[in-house]
Amino acid sequence: MSFQKPKGTQDILPGVVESWQYIEAKARDLCRRYNYKEIRTPIFEHTELFQRGVGETTDIVEKEMYTFLDKGDRSISLRPEGTAGVVRSYAENKLYGEPEVAKLYYIGPMFRYEQPQAGRYRQLHQFGVEAIGSVDPSIDAEVIALGYSFYTELGLRDVTVEINSVGNPASRAAYREQLLAFLMPMKETLCKDCQSRIERNPLRVLDCKVDQHRFEGAPTLLEHLDEECVTHFEKVMQILTAMHIPFAINTKLVRGLDYYTHTVFEYKAAGIGAIDTIGAGGRYNGLVGQIGGQDKPGIGLGLGLERTLLILQAQNVELPVKTPLDLYMIALGEQAEQVVAPLLYELRREGVLAEKDYLGRKMKTQMKAADRFEASFVAILGDDELARGEITVKTMATGEQTTVPLNELPAFIRSAKSAQIQ
Amino acid sequence: MSFQKPKGTQDILPGVVESWQYIEAKARDLCRRYNYKEIRTPIFEHTELFQRGVGETTDIVEKEMYTFLDKGDRSISLRPEGTAGVVRSYAENKLYGEPEVAKLYYIGPMFRYEQPQAGRYRQLHQFGVEAIGSVDPSIDAEVIALGYSFYTELGLRDVTVEINSVGNPASRAAYREQLLAFLMPMKETLCKDCQSRIERNPLRVLDCKVDQHRFEGAPTLLEHLDEECVTHFEKVMQILTAMHIPFAINTKLVRGLDYYTHTVFEYKAAGIGAIDTIGAGGRYNGLVGQIGGQDKPGIGLGLGLERTLLILQAQNVELPVKTPLDLYMIALGEQAEQVVAPLLYELRREGVLAEKDYLGRKMKTQMKAADRFEASFVAILGDDELARGEITVKTMATGEQTTVPLNELPAFIRSAKSAQIQ
Repeated sequence: MSFQKPKGTQDILPGVVESWQYIEAKARDLCRRYNYKEIRTPIFEHTELFQRGVGETTDIVEKEMYTFLDKGDRSISLRPEGTAGVVRSYAENKLYGEPEVAKLYYIGPMFRYEQPQAGRYRQLHQFGVEAIGSVDPSIDAEVIALGYSFYTELGLRDVTVEINSVGNPASRAAYREQLLAFLMPMKETLCKDCQSRIERNPLRVLDCKVDQHRFEGAPTLLEHLDEECVTHFEKVMQILTAMHIPFAINTKLVRGLDYYTHTVFEYKAAGIGAIDTIGAGGRYNGLVGQIGGQDKPGIGLGLGLERTLLILQAQNVELPVKTPLDLYMIALGEQAEQVVAPLLYELRREGVLAEKDYLGRKMKTQMKAADRFEASFVAILGDDELARGEITVKTMATGEQTTVPLNELPAFIRSAKSAQIQ
Repeated sequence: MSFQKPKGTQDILPGVVESWQYIEAKARDLCRRYNYKEIRTPIFEHTELFQRGVGETTDIVEKEMYTFLDKGDRSISLRPEGTAGVVRSYAENKLYGEPEVAKLYYIGPMFRYEQPQAGRYRQLHQFGVEAIGSVDPSIDAEVIALGYSFYTELGLRDVTVEINSVGNPASRAAYREQLLAFLMPMKETLCKDCQSRIERNPLRVLDCKVDQHRFEGAPTLLEHLDEECVTHFEKVMQILTAMHIPFAINTKLVRGLDYYTHTVFEYKAAGIGAIDTIGAGGRYNGLVGQIGGQDKPGIGLGLGLERTLLILQAQNVELPVKTPLDLYMIALGEQAEQVVAPLLYELRREGVLAEKDYLGRKMKTQMKAADRFEASFVAILGDDELARGEITVKTMATGEQTTVPLNELPAFIRSAKSAQIQ
């Protein structure tokens, strides 16, 4: 009998997991500096939350959700994205009662039943932030800056931001009429998805990958914004300019999700050949009311971690992820062997990254293991040394050997290690 | 419309999430010192893996799994525990080909459809380690020590370890006969679960919560161990003694899962009134072969994070989780307001934990916010100061005020902060 991981999922193994840990630690540290607090919502939610909060006409909800009945006959779905759960939690836990804007972040798995391809998995992972409770354009700029800093502090080059405004409901209603006037004459010749969506959500037609080239002359939403929308958008751009964040307006940017208002944005970076979208976000002033809390404005972003790692690799960025051993301990003789395990326990308790052999291997093979682990020090304990209460410590960088009293070993390694770092 | 989280799940919110972050960071740091590397396996696996790897007669698999068909008609299940996935991954990725023992750890959500109660959720979280590839008793002791250190380094008091040996298949076969002879006469009067399991797995009957008291006189497995088993068990205890880890033999300890061999153990701590099991583990020398890799010995542990937090709370342990703001910035006047957002961006880039207002509030209310965030410093920028290129910084601990050149603000805060820490 042998088992495989489910199709479209991945095992993240030692050797690769260190990069994940590094980029997650970067996200956490960034959120600490920006004063965003972590929120953890369940891996699954009631299916209706996503239908309502992500949009029933989206591919994500229509085609890609892992939906099933639990043993209590509730329809639940593995979360396909992070925002709906966070907004549900904000409302259910009455976070709108707090005096401050809710500045929240999450890191974790999402699930979409898509055709697997390079960098696209059915269990994917996202880092996202949501700021709920303020219409201040400075928080739009802050969220954009946070994502930009995430990529650049990781070492990605040539990261740019594309932004647009999709306006408020009033501007959109006016624009919708104009857009329909442009699209309806070509309706019969559009792809099937577009034909079925054109009247329900004509903005999404512009996002279509099949017919994109035919919409060059379409009226843009940006031309139809009212004064409130224009002022908001200009202030966001003003702050981004003052921050020296490289951005450009892309009037075609509308994003796939139904709930966006005002600012929408995408991050682009040079990847394998083409310029790719590596993350995105936007303002969603109607969503919180729709999901059931009080009507509060919000803005957020979601960054794919698989995509981030792929572009880091494509750009040959080396993350500083090595954790060499401090000490490898070798016991020679039966009595020495009995002492090594408790000694290791003490060393580790005192903060030393220490290891030994568990396979009864010869000294030469153990020395090879110490090399493979890139141990800074190797300590060798023989029965006769043990009788004298001593141990031999070899500094691997220099080959130097010292004899150290057994009970001083932890202190010796600690101070030798900090001397090496300086 | 309003939505609730699914029954039996929880939202982990700011204010509580910091404790989660702390205990997870402790787990990671401990694994770093013990040279365990993280492995991340998918949230769901093929259902058969758990039937085979956890055991079809276990409550977990029989009654508590979230099992469903995906869109490709595969039966998949949300993982109810961590070991099966890790062992599957070890085998599938041929980690047995590596020269070293695979020392792996995981932290993450597990799913069991149980009746929710205090500290018991349908989405629960575990920290676990698995060491695969060695029969050395020192690695049994190491795993036990790692779990013990996790609890004690978090500050839990009166943690003890109960251990037992459930032997090898040969010892168990001999014991099984004796146990059946003891149990069969009472079969008709046992609970239904036990009646159905008695012949398939009589050892699990001893674990029954209903009839526990009736098994006082049952023969113990420990009396039926062969020499190999006895030697292994004695060595484990010898090392634990040398480590000064408080342990006691509990001959009734057999654990609920079918796959254990030799060493099994549980951690106990004084919680709310009673002494509770807070984590457990054991050796599983047959499991890897059974799930499809080469036949390799293994040992692991799994610790419930909900349970850990509950006992920490019951023992009034305060975790050091505060992250006060370094700096709260207040802008007075229109021009100053335009400068604050980019200034904040620069401060955060330089490592300062900095915040501002996003709600257009009055200065007095903003000062209150700074207090609530426990800001070390408040910087106040007026239009006239801005014209002079300066800013006023107030040290909150002393009330002292200083004027600082605007472009020196990040350096000033950084050095003032490190002076405060020392």
